[in-house]
Order: sequence, then C-alpha cells, then structure tokens
Amino acid sequence: MPVFSASDSAHMARALQLAERGQYSAHPNPMVGCVIVRDNQVVGEGWHAMAGEPHAEINALQAAGDDAQGATVYVTLEPCAHDGKTPPCSTALVEAGVARVIAAMQDPFPRVAGRGLGRLKEAGIETAVGLMQAAAESLNAGFVSRVTRNRPLVRLKVAASIDGAIAMKSGDSQWVSGPEARHDVQRLRASSGAIMTGIGTVIADDPSLNVRAPELDTRGVQPLRVVLDSRLRMPPAAGMLTLPGTTLVCCTGDRDGSRLADAGAEVRSFAPDGAVVDVSAVLGDLARREVNVVLVEAGPGVAGYLLEKDLVDELVIYQAPHIMGSETRGMFHTPSWTRLADRRKLEVCDVRRIGDDTRITARVRH
Amino acid sequence: MPVFSASDSAHMARALQLAERGQYSAHPNPMVGCVIVRDNQVVGEGWHAMAGEPHAEINALQAAGDDAQGATVYVTLEPCAHDGKTPPCSTALVEAGVARVIAAMQDPFPRVAGRGLGRLKEAGIETAVGLMQAAAESLNAGFVSRVTRNRPLVRLKVAASIDGAIAMKSGDSQWVSGPEARHDVQRLRASSGAIMTGIGTVIADDPSLNVRAPELDTRGVQPLRVVLDSRLRMPPAAGMLTLPGTTLVCCTGDRDGSRLADAGAEVRSFAPDGAVVDVSAVLGDLARREVNVVLVEAGPGVAGYLLEKDLVDELVIYQAPHIMGSETRGMFHTPSWTRLADRRKLEVCDVRRIGDDTRITARVRH
Repeated sequence: MPVFSASDSAHMARALQLAERGQYSAHPNPMVGCVIVRDNQVVGEGWHAMAGEPHAEINALQAAGDDAQGATVYVTLEPCAHDGKTPPCSTALVEAGVARVIAAMQDPFPRVAGRGLGRLKEAGIETAVGLMQAAAESLNAGFVSRVTRNRPLVRLKVAASIDGAIAMKSGDSQWVSGPEARHDVQRLRASSGAIMTGIGTVIADDPSLNVRAPELDTRGVQPLRVVLDSRLRMPPAAGMLTLPGTTLVCCTGDRDGSRLADAGAEVRSFAPDGAVVDVSAVLGDLARREVNVVLVEAGPGVAGYLLEKDLVDELVIYQAPHIMGSETRGMFHTPSWTRLADRRKLEVCDVRRIGDDTRITARVRH
Repeated sequence: MPVFSASDSAHMARALQLAERGQYSAHPNPMVGCVIVRDNQVVGEGWHAMAGEPHAEINALQAAGDDAQGATVYVTLEPCAHDGKTPPCSTALVEAGVARVIAAMQDPFPRVAGRGLGRLKEAGIETAVGLMQAAAESLNAGFVSRVTRNRPLVRLKVAASIDGAIAMKSGDSQWVSGPEARHDVQRLRASSGAIMTGIGTVIADDPSLNVRAPELDTRGVQPLRVVLDSRLRMPPAAGMLTLPGTTLVCCTGDRDGSRLADAGAEVRSFAPDGAVVDVSAVLGDLARREVNVVLVEAGPGVAGYLLEKDLVDELVIYQAPHIMGSETRGMFHTPSWTRLADRRKLEVCDVRRIGDDTRITARVRH
C-alpha cells in the first residue's frame, strides 16, 4: 500500500472538486478531475466536461504545457489506455514526460482495470492508486454501477412529512416540500441519465420530469424520461411528450403503441412481473443506453415495489417540518413486508437542511 | 439596547455552559450560571446545582472573594431580589461591591421581572440585560413555561423508522432505535420533572420510566411518573410502582384507587375529555407540583391526542435507519385530522446523529 502525504491528499481533494464540475454534463462518461503539480506548484488543472470533449488529463496537460515535464499528476480515475473518441490519456501522459501519476481509483471495468497504469509503468513513470478511493468511487457510483453490474444506480427520491406521510387519505395534498428542496431536486435530475415514474403519477399529476433550472448546465441534454406503464395507459396528450428529450414508455405484452409513438414517445415492451413491468429488465435496457443514474420520482406503489424487489441503491428523502398524522398515505406501499425482518436497513450518508426541509441521503443495504 | 463586546459574549457563553451543569439536578429551579471578571481575568465561576443549595451568583462570589470588588458579573438569569431558601443574590452582589452586572434574561415571572436588576441599579451598579437572551430562554424553556403559562413544557419523544413507523401491524416489534439513542433518552428523562405515558403502554410494556444511567447525577431524585388511565386499569403489580420515586395515576370520575394506593401509587381523578383524561388539567396539576418539563413517552394514541389538542411544545424523534413500509403502525393516531390544513407545523431546531440513528428536535408551532 503506497504512503501518501498530506499534500498528496490536498491535491487529490482538489482533483475531486474539479471532477464534480462535470456532474451535470459528463454522463454517460465518468466525472474525472486532474491536477498537475511540479515543485509543489500547481501547473495545470483539468476536468472532463462532456463525452466527445477532451478528458481531464488532456485538459490539465494542455494547461501545464512544458511544466508537465517531471511533474506529478493527480487524477481521480485511472487514465485510459484505449483509443476512444479521443487518443488515450496514458499515451499523452508518457509523451508529456510526467514523472509520477497518482490515481484515486482503477478503471472500474474489471477487464481493463490497471491497464492505463500499466502502460505508464512500462514507460518508467512512478504510479500509485487508492488515494481518496472511497470519495472517488462515491462520486462515480452510477458509472461504476453501470459498468460492473450492468444496471444503473437507482436513486429513489421522496418528499414526506416528518412522520412519513406524502398526502392526506382524503386526497387533499399540495407540495409537501419547500421551494429550496424542489430546486434541489432539479440538481438530482440534472445529475441523472434517466428519471423514472409510474403511470399513476403521470395520470394524476402530468409531471414534466425535466431539468428547468437555467444555471444547471446539462449542455442542452435532458434526462431520458421513463414511464412504467404495463397496460399502456399513457395519455398521448401527456405534457412530457411535448418537451425536448426522449420519453420511454415501458409496457408489457403485445400492445399498440402507435398513437403514443405519433405523439413522440418511444414505446417498448418488457417482460412482465405479475401485473407490472419487470423493472430489472428495464434497468438492463437503461444500462445498455449508457444511463449511469436513474432518479425515481414516483408514488408509493412504484417506490414500494422497487424496495420490495431490492432494486433501490440510494434513498433521498426531503422531510418537511410538518406532522401530518394518521389519516394519510405513507411513503412506500410494501404489502409483502409483514414481519419486522422484512424491513430494509439503510446507511445514512448525509443529513442536511435544505430551506425549511431536512434532506436525508441513505444507501440501502442489499 | 446596550452594546455588548465580543468578550462580553464569550463570558456569557461560559456562564451558559456552567448553567447547564445543573441540567439534571437544578429543577424545579432554573439552571443558572455565573462568571465574574475583573481586569479581563475570570476571578470566579458558579452555577446552581440544586434547590436549597446556593444560587450561581453566590457560588461565583465565594470563588472570587475580594476580587469581586469592582468586577463585572455575567449571569444567565436576573439575580433574585426576594428572600427564598437563600438570601437574595442582588443583596450579595451589592455587598460584594461589584461594578457591573450583565444578565442574559429577566426573571420570567412577569410581576418580579426587573426587580433584581432594579435593586442593583439603586445601589449604583451598572446593569444590562439581553446578552444571549435566546440561548438563556431556550436553556430554561421548561421553567419559563411553568412560571409564565402555568403548565410545564411538554416534550414528546418518539422512536420510529425513517418512514415513520413504530412497529409492524402484525405486532412484530422490538427496539426501533439503537443503544446510543436509548441512552440519550436517559438524558431526556434526567432533565425532566415528570415522565408521562398512557395506560396502554403500561399494560403492553410495563416500562420503568426511570433514570438508570449512573453518570446522570440527579441527586437521587427520580422524575415523577405520570400514567394517563381514565378507567383506572393500572395493574397494582406494575413494575414502576416498586421503584424509587412517585407514580401519579390520573383517572376520571369517582373510582376506587385503594389497591393502587396500597401498591404505592398516588391516584388522582381529573376532569374527563370525552372518554379520556383531560390532559390540560393534568398539566396544570404538574405545574403546581413545580414540574418544569414533562417528557411524554407514550404510544400513538396518547401522542396523537396531545398533538390534536395542541399540547406538545417540542418533539424529539429518534429516526432509525430502516424502512419498515406500509404494513406498520404510524407515530401518531390523529383521527380528527382529515384535511391538509389540520397538520402541525414544526420548527426544526437540531438534527444530529446519535449512534446509527438520527435525532430530530423540533418545536411545534402553536
């Protein structure tokens, strides 16, 4: 295990910060940041902004110019070794004459992990891996999920009162969370490759499920909208079909989707799971479409189904400062969980105030 | 409005910290801390530990000795002007020859507010009030409630899953929160003059409702245990009746409490509110018994009733990192709340991790 200095950590922390600048535009590529340091001076910084544009290392090398010679390179992900849309970064680093490359984590593709660093080693460059690895893996958890599990990271978002209610039983409801929390959801959407909902929510609320906050620069790309709609009840007049971007309507069996297709939807039939769409199959399809993160914004039925099937990786709860009491609808409909042992355990990662609401981010233990 | 310096604030912050040392033993008296400063040096510190023992100012004056002459006194509550169990602090401060007295807040008794400071002014001592007043009022919110509203502060404690469940509908249940949270509840109990529960909880769980953590020094005093039991179903064999301290069983109408009295309970009849005890009347009785804070540890029925009647001042939720789903019992049974407008608004004051649980402290907006 290599020993890293405090200054190594500081530079890698900066590289991680740079990587985050790609959070709304880099996907389906991973977010990557790079810092080049010579004689304790930062001589170049870079990050990856968007597929087809230069990788973080190339941007940082360009900023460093001749100063890259003999320098140390901090990069949040192992430099690539394969010719993709751009020439491989490992080659560029060798050509620039850098002395040392520290990567936070290996390439998550099991079959290529270590190859980029291997090329650097062959060229006589000192390499090390694992500095701030947990933070780097967490930053690209969606990308890692897609390439290692062939399914996106599933992030379930719910807005509820402090006692876990989302609406009154009587149907009396309105926004549960405040404007700051709703704006925060825009950030979640902009970080996602797809947003999933159920047909019940579409019929009840006609949601847009798009990124509207102008300061969130997704380079004009809208997340794929995914509607779980086994019986193909999607109204061709649904508002989301008129918006930029693609809406994928997921049904089961052999159904006529021509009217929806005319209205702009992509209709696809998936294997059924009882009366509903097998969401595992949908997630496989989304991975093939290079979706790293799916944000689920749905009602208690879809949310509960995904929890019952253990398909949720992360939960984001916006808890409003209200007590709504017992005559309410709960967050998750989980009819199959009747014993205490059925409950799902969480690892709470982050709790913070968003306006008047409390946002709780938790990983679901599988 | 007097202008306070940064050093004034620092000394008052220290006085507040000293006051907190009385949190498990000072009640029914308020917690008070005092710092005496001469020539920018702290020459005396004191706090009030227990009724019958010296007030904070007296302890600080004793520590300061002759150095109190010409000094500035920081005290979290206006010094008393009346002869109580000890001679009035205002007299002692005058006799010690202090130059200046800064109080965080006035005496909350409307009829005596300002009298202690008035006596000091008459003696030529410079006085000021209001430095860190919000913190001082919050520290003694229970005492302030009792003397200004003639009822204790009602703090409702609930342990629930992140989706607001306290048990499975099937009855399958166990500790919802972890050991650190359960220990934290010991602190809540030790800070309370009374602990209230419902007869349903007594019959189901036979709780002790006592302070057991040896490091919480309540000077041997146990909080009054209060059981809401309109029909006097309390079992004479209930465990709490065998423990040190008093158990008050609150029923309605004319019932024979002799067997319970023989078992050690104090039985009292209160006005009914429909089929249950009118808790407002019980709270009035508790204020007369000099209870500053009532901690409610009860099931969804009592908790919901108190919320419906707007009798809860503060909510403390221990949220366990679990999703329990829909086949569960909720935190509050509030059958009368059918419209969204019935919900109660909260002001979240504090959110922190206690072991694996998240503790949310919130004030209920009346």
